[in-house]
Amino acid sequence: MSQSSVTAALLVIGNEILTGETRDANLAFLGTELTGLGIRLAEARVVADDEGAIVAALNELRRRFDYVFTTGGIGPTHDDITAASVAKAFGRPLTLHPEAHEILLGYYEPGELNQARLRMAHTPEGAQLVENPISGAPGFQVENVFVLAGIPSVMQAMFGSLRHRLTGGQRVLSETIVAYLAEGHMAAGLGAIQAANPDVEIGSYPFHKEGRYGARLVLRATEPERLALVSDAVAALVEELSAGS
Amino acid sequence: MSQSSVTAALLVIGNEILTGETRDANLAFLGTELTGLGIRLAEARVVADDEGAIVAALNELRRRFDYVFTTGGIGPTHDDITAASVAKAFGRPLTLHPEAHEILLGYYEPGELNQARLRMAHTPEGAQLVENPISGAPGFQVENVFVLAGIPSVMQAMFGSLRHRLTGGQRVLSETIVAYLAEGHMAAGLGAIQAANPDVEIGSYPFHKEGRYGARLVLRATEPERLALVSDAVAALVEELSAGS
Repeated sequence: MSQSSVTAALLVIGNEILTGETRDANLAFLGTELTGLGIRLAEARVVADDEGAIVAALNELRRRFDYVFTTGGIGPTHDDITAASVAKAFGRPLTLHPEAHEILLGYYEPGELNQARLRMAHTPEGAQLVENPISGAPGFQVENVFVLAGIPSVMQAMFGSLRHRLTGGQRVLSETIVAYLAEGHMAAGLGAIQAANPDVEIGSYPFHKEGRYGARLVLRATEPERLALVSDAVAALVEELSAGS
Repeated sequence: MSQSSVTAALLVIGNEILTGETRDANLAFLGTELTGLGIRLAEARVVADDEGAIVAALNELRRRFDYVFTTGGIGPTHDDITAASVAKAFGRPLTLHPEAHEILLGYYEPGELNQARLRMAHTPEGAQLVENPISGAPGFQVENVFVLAGIPSVMQAMFGSLRHRLTGGQRVLSETIVAYLAEGHMAAGLGAIQAANPDVEIGSYPFHKEGRYGARLVLRATEPERLALVSDAVAALVEELSAGS
């Protein structure tokens, strides 16, 4: 299978995701964006607002993948422990970042920058800021780890601020064919096409919509000619089976 | 912090989730259901359709948590490798499950149970089936691991079939207060209430909706009297700050 050689992981931090109270939206966004940059999102994790869990996950992921993104837990309240946990994972002190301090001084009205909000200007020592064009308080980068907000609109704006820092690999192109056929009806044919074309990854993602079963067949490859050729073969298979069913 | 002592993890299997093509819905469902049963969903992971990744994640999670649920990758196509990967993780052979075979023979019209569909009757040796009331092909359980479908409607029906096998802990009760106040304005007060009441977990989940900032304040505890008392304190804080702003 042809795969981009640049990899990433996402670490979602927050009890509210694990209890089902909030539905994460950052994984789908990041997956789409990274794919477009030629970076393969290889793993995502969700952990609670728990220092031990954050430190352990982060230290594993940052060694295994080229980039790690965290979302959530960088606000001003007592349960926002991401910055302190990242500092601990890297063995660096958590210190007031002068540039972040300046940003918050400019963002809030005089007197509004209280102790709680000042926590948002603290980063692991030596961190590089990630601009937040929406709500002031910045994210930050330490080595290959980017620490971002959890609110999707803010997280997406921060990603816009940092995307130029990422170095992508070969872009993976994709082609999607929607088939209103049972997967079990297509499986033998699809498997044969996959076996004959290992450089094109063929995924079959079943759905059940309005009483009908079907599957989205997604083909991925780095070479456009190969992608087109194998897509044609899959489309011909689907047409043949649809005619016969 | 008061926490249920029964824990679980979710392992979502599928490239389509990591590329952003499909947005996972099973995490939020499972988190809500488990919380209701007094089981704490402590971690969720998403990995690709990759045997090595599935085996490694599963072997870590099944040792660390009381229950593990997997979703995705149990269909009939070549990229459905979950059953084989689970068998490998447990060091058991993948064999035709006689009961699953019967189910599929009953589900499909004569002649429709082809080789590809027969793959869905294969489980790690000794697995106990999980009934699929929607589309025939069952999920299965091996020790503390439940292997479920990825399609949300099917996954949810399977969860209904297995829920009686789960032993929950003390139920965690929750109370939600929505505050249209900036988190930084409430943080000092919330932090003080949290520090004085460590048996009630207070989470602050900011949102940005229609141009307004606010936060959902979620309180969780096992003792209803304590939950009510601390909720009253938080509500009073929000009222006081709202009046003053």
